[in-house]
Amino acid sequence: MALLVQKFGGTSVGDADRIRAVADHVRRCRRRGDSVVLVVSAMGKETDELLRLAGAVSSTHPGREMDMLITAGERKAIALVCMALHDLDIPADSFTGSQAGFLTDTTHRNAKILDVIPERVRETIDAGRVAVVAGAQGVSTDRNVTFLGRGGSDTTAVALAKALGADSCELYTDVSGVFTTDPRMVDSARKVQRISFDEMLEMTAVGCPKPAMRSVEVAQRFGVPLHVRSAFTWEPGTLVTKEDQIMEQAIVSAITPDTSEAKVTVSGVPDRPGVAAQVFRALADEAANVDMIVQNTSADGVTDISFTVPREDLANALVVCKAMGSEVGAVAVTADESIARVSVIGAGMKSNPGVAATMFETLAAAEINIQMISTSPIRISCVIAERDIERAVQVLHDAYELSTSTH
Amino acid sequence: MALLVQKFGGTSVGDADRIRAVADHVRRCRRRGDSVVLVVSAMGKETDELLRLAGAVSSTHPGREMDMLITAGERKAIALVCMALHDLDIPADSFTGSQAGFLTDTTHRNAKILDVIPERVRETIDAGRVAVVAGAQGVSTDRNVTFLGRGGSDTTAVALAKALGADSCELYTDVSGVFTTDPRMVDSARKVQRISFDEMLEMTAVGCPKPAMRSVEVAQRFGVPLHVRSAFTWEPGTLVTKEDQIMEQAIVSAITPDTSEAKVTVSGVPDRPGVAAQVFRALADEAANVDMIVQNTSADGVTDISFTVPREDLANALVVCKAMGSEVGAVAVTADESIARVSVIGAGMKSNPGVAATMFETLAAAEINIQMISTSPIRISCVIAERDIERAVQVLHDAYELSTSTH
Repeated sequence: MALLVQKFGGTSVGDADRIRAVADHVRRCRRRGDSVVLVVSAMGKETDELLRLAGAVSSTHPGREMDMLITAGERKAIALVCMALHDLDIPADSFTGSQAGFLTDTTHRNAKILDVIPERVRETIDAGRVAVVAGAQGVSTDRNVTFLGRGGSDTTAVALAKALGADSCELYTDVSGVFTTDPRMVDSARKVQRISFDEMLEMTAVGCPKPAMRSVEVAQRFGVPLHVRSAFTWEPGTLVTKEDQIMEQAIVSAITPDTSEAKVTVSGVPDRPGVAAQVFRALADEAANVDMIVQNTSADGVTDISFTVPREDLANALVVCKAMGSEVGAVAVTADESIARVSVIGAGMKSNPGVAATMFETLAAAEINIQMISTSPIRISCVIAERDIERAVQVLHDAYELSTSTH
Repeated sequence: MALLVQKFGGTSVGDADRIRAVADHVRRCRRRGDSVVLVVSAMGKETDELLRLAGAVSSTHPGREMDMLITAGERKAIALVCMALHDLDIPADSFTGSQAGFLTDTTHRNAKILDVIPERVRETIDAGRVAVVAGAQGVSTDRNVTFLGRGGSDTTAVALAKALGADSCELYTDVSGVFTTDPRMVDSARKVQRISFDEMLEMTAVGCPKPAMRSVEVAQRFGVPLHVRSAFTWEPGTLVTKEDQIMEQAIVSAITPDTSEAKVTVSGVPDRPGVAAQVFRALADEAANVDMIVQNTSADGVTDISFTVPREDLANALVVCKAMGSEVGAVAVTADESIARVSVIGAGMKSNPGVAATMFETLAAAEINIQMISTSPIRISCVIAERDIERAVQVLHDAYELSTSTH
């Protein structure tokens, strides 16, 4: 008899049929003898629709009111899921973030959880009922409704699993697990059975859409095992666990494509201390989410700094860079939206030299030019032209033999 | 400098344009120096849409979950109204029923307000900000979200006006006030400037759709003056006040048509004590909302009992009556859905005999047959054939000279 926290994302509760399918799944879990707590996101595209409405009503979007607005979506979903459970004679109660004991700081739109005191959820479990908790929401220390941000339902599920001492936290989504690469690009992409928290974090950081990175961080910190799986096929998915629980560590676990970013280059920057700091502080102040940063050693006293930003932040970043560029005496600021990033990820590369060399050789053999390189202990990323991304992923997936390895 | 509680119904906040119009209206009120507290309903047909969703998901609709679902609509609306206010540089904060201090009993779907402690609303007013409160919701004594029922936003506004000691409670709606009769039926229908609580209650009881009857009762009990007016034309509407604040009491204030009911007749009922009690207790147990009841003096030991019910309750009522009819020994149970009720309402009729006689004479002169009659001290209602209702309203509106009187 396990206690399972199961999180269902927007597409998993996207319409009446999907909601009834979730209820039916809960019935099967309870028949097996498990206790179930659900965490539910807003239905389908509801959050987008609420944002559209806010845009139509006003150009001013105070955080407190945006959070009041957006959290309405999850409230609808939890009530509907409870009704579907009652229809199957399964006793169930819905809880808002506040009712479930999620206390947060006062940062609207992107609140941080300070504490979880799931008293009422615990009582509901003890009474043999299903608690259905609204994802991504809480109440702040000054008694206002807060939203944990996009992907916040994953974080809610992990934090709740930790607070309840649950045996597992299952993240149900519209993909059946974590893949060695995007199956739309590579036919032989394979579902990974187990992956470490570190690898999962690197993957979500470079374009693997699920689960939300923050939830993986929280899960890693508290050692909550995750199970990423499908609410459509219900088959076993991918377990995300501590590295030492994985017997045979693959050298490379996955190839991740990312076409969401643009590249900015500030060239002819005088090579003196503090220049990079000036530029990136100014970018941070404008909330441009700078990602990969590359600066080469200086030749003749000037250097080029390149970085990537999400494409939607590009216009903002360019304004900042042009202003800062003239201030620090740079020669030019250029941008390229037609780039992509391909990353090779694997906890095993720490103890296996040559992974980077293989990557560069493979891309070279395919005549794909590398524009930027950055690395972490378990990841190597290359920026290439966007038109080459599918081919890059295919040749790398083959080079590391990901379609046949067996972890 | 007055403190005004202004309630905006669903059509008044039905889309982005309407919401911005409400914000603009608040700006004009504040320029005049008034403090404003808003009570807002769910947008347009949102509540209907939520009910449709609940029907699609489940045939079981526990009250606790229905209330969680439906109250999401008002949360969206208050957040959007606040954003529109911020857009005009008007500081504003939204409050759910719970945050606004609405404590209710535990009767879901139709909760009763136990107390209103609008601490946070008061702080907001004192800080020169606009408080925007979600209509028709509260938190129960067992900490669950409750819905006050359809029309509950009017009640929220009145109760809040009372708790804050507001100078006036303005109910903005899609009609420009209370009329002497339905303007769709009579061209010369005229907006009433002032009307008493008693008259307003009689009118809402017999088909005048706005405001909700319960809110008028609460306003009367606490002496909160109401102003029923339009959120589309913004012109002055109808004041609903205590009778003694109306200088010149009209004999007849309004003619009210009502085509929402059906008539049931149980005939040949043995005329002994307790029979009517048996029938109407059984109907009440089935939640059939019986309205007008007429029983004639008995001839030869048997009598006929007729009553009206909302047409949607008719099927239920017939089942109950047929069962009870055979139990008490009645001869037949018949129903007629093609009826209408026309009512003459006026506080002045108490001191003016002959109002009823004029009504019956007028209908007779128009060859309209009266099927049932019932009266209150300030109302006379006749049930007639539905096909005659427009003509009945027209001839009565003329007979009492309502198009020319000046109250």
